[in-house]
Amino acid sequence: MAFLFNSDAERAKVFAAEFARELPGLRFASRPDAVDAAEVRYLLTWTAPEGIQQYRNLEVLFSIGAGVDQIDTTGLPPTVKLVRMVDEEIVRMMQEYATMAVLALHRDLPGYLAQQADAVWRARSARQARERRVGVLGLGVLGAAVLERLEPFGFQLQGWSRSPRSIPGVACYSGRSELKSFLGQTDILVCLLPLTAETHGILDAELFSALPCGASLVHVGRGPQLDHGALLEALDNGQISSAVIDVTEPEPLPSGHPFWRHPKALLTPHIASVTSPRSAARAVIENIRRHEDGIDPIGLVDRSRGY
Amino acid sequence: MAFLFNSDAERAKVFAAEFARELPGLRFASRPDAVDAAEVRYLLTWTAPEGIQQYRNLEVLFSIGAGVDQIDTTGLPPTVKLVRMVDEEIVRMMQEYATMAVLALHRDLPGYLAQQADAVWRARSARQARERRVGVLGLGVLGAAVLERLEPFGFQLQGWSRSPRSIPGVACYSGRSELKSFLGQTDILVCLLPLTAETHGILDAELFSALPCGASLVHVGRGPQLDHGALLEALDNGQISSAVIDVTEPEPLPSGHPFWRHPKALLTPHIASVTSPRSAARAVIENIRRHEDGIDPIGLVDRSRGY
Repeated sequence: MAFLFNSDAERAKVFAAEFARELPGLRFASRPDAVDAAEVRYLLTWTAPEGIQQYRNLEVLFSIGAGVDQIDTTGLPPTVKLVRMVDEEIVRMMQEYATMAVLALHRDLPGYLAQQADAVWRARSARQARERRVGVLGLGVLGAAVLERLEPFGFQLQGWSRSPRSIPGVACYSGRSELKSFLGQTDILVCLLPLTAETHGILDAELFSALPCGASLVHVGRGPQLDHGALLEALDNGQISSAVIDVTEPEPLPSGHPFWRHPKALLTPHIASVTSPRSAARAVIENIRRHEDGIDPIGLVDRSRGY
Repeated sequence: MAFLFNSDAERAKVFAAEFARELPGLRFASRPDAVDAAEVRYLLTWTAPEGIQQYRNLEVLFSIGAGVDQIDTTGLPPTVKLVRMVDEEIVRMMQEYATMAVLALHRDLPGYLAQQADAVWRARSARQARERRVGVLGLGVLGAAVLERLEPFGFQLQGWSRSPRSIPGVACYSGRSELKSFLGQTDILVCLLPLTAETHGILDAELFSALPCGASLVHVGRGPQLDHGALLEALDNGQISSAVIDVTEPEPLPSGHPFWRHPKALLTPHIASVTSPRSAARAVIENIRRHEDGIDPIGLVDRSRGY
């Protein structure tokens, strides 16, 4: 029985040390060629390795990221469990980044940065938090955690998810039929949706036009959800006043792309939330223990929905 | 008996409406020449008006700002109460701004903005919140409120004040003798001190050198507390890695000043927290009621200390 770690050597060292201490009975392999494929019961990876069918005794496929959209599950028997990375550090980092981004848009930091570049000392109009409606697209672990961190600031909070959810203090909308009502009430939109066929390209011209004029966007979902051209047009015509963008398609963003120099866009290189090797290793170890005890792992993906 | 509002006409309208509703028995004057000086029992102002001695029946002098350092109290009888503006909106806005600034420095937003300008897509090294020590200079209403908002993020929190304070979850230091120990433990320093003779120029080369190398600064106190030359030198030699600056001396900052174009400085024009006329009017009305009931107004200044 073996655990195959299919990622970079630096993280492998951290994982190997944690596994040696916590699961000494489980063989740890840090390269596919270091282990007989039939021995592999657990596999941790970013994308599916070539010839995944050879791991015929595979029980759990762990994604090293918070999403699984990058894993091609073609050829993976339906009995194999697919598990997203849900670790405390991912959640904390997303809370930090999203709170920073929402506050930056609420307080018009992009406008002040533009003024700083022009040496202009002038107060810009401000709105109180209780008059600002913040809406989160996607109410999974991350979306709910971000809303929890925003709550003390006194914003009007709302959320949208595919299936109905209930979060105290948050006006919850669900399903395609309620998306437009949700958008019409949202001044700052935070996208934290998983990437699926349904959410691919969801941040498009139609969605932007359903927001109040001058709304702003925090995109911390996945790159392919955002139609770059539509956002650029909405920024240029004022429908969207400013945006904080952490994910793009492709990544890295090509050097000539208009987002780089756009005065209304703050761009970061997919760093809102990253997996720290130690806390990720601990999350995986806990999930292996759960699986061996017959309990569903935390972050188990419904393969029919894709998240 | 009259209330003299000595500020701009736009705010005067908001104040007049609130006073008419809440304190109809009190005469409201929005200009010094509209009232007999001897009638004035309450005065709201930014700086002391000329000939303040003529208001010989003055009981309470209200500052329109969170500080009173700009009011010259020479010639003001010691029986006159001096009151800072403590209103909920000032507190909320400071919580928003300081949280945004601390998160921006924690997540290295200045570094990412510089990378954006150069079209560089590269993750910068990150630290977990539990490994980040945030220290607040000044533990008054604003300092304590900011610490409260930072707490859920999991930072190591500490504070320093002139006289001993105790805040749950915050390592509190006090007095000049403990300032160096406090600074030595502080990765992100937030200045929220009142401006007094003792705090004038407190953010100087000696203070910066007592911080760990690479620490960063959020300056939301008062302009004259910061030695601009010392900060520029500390930014240039790396002792300070980055700074968010909301207050300067003078204000507005002259257009040629190095802060404007500094790649490691985010500069805003004294907007961290501003008095909203309506909530300020309500705070003043509440304080007049307290005063008339023989209770100390909220924000009463100890004139011997100056805050």
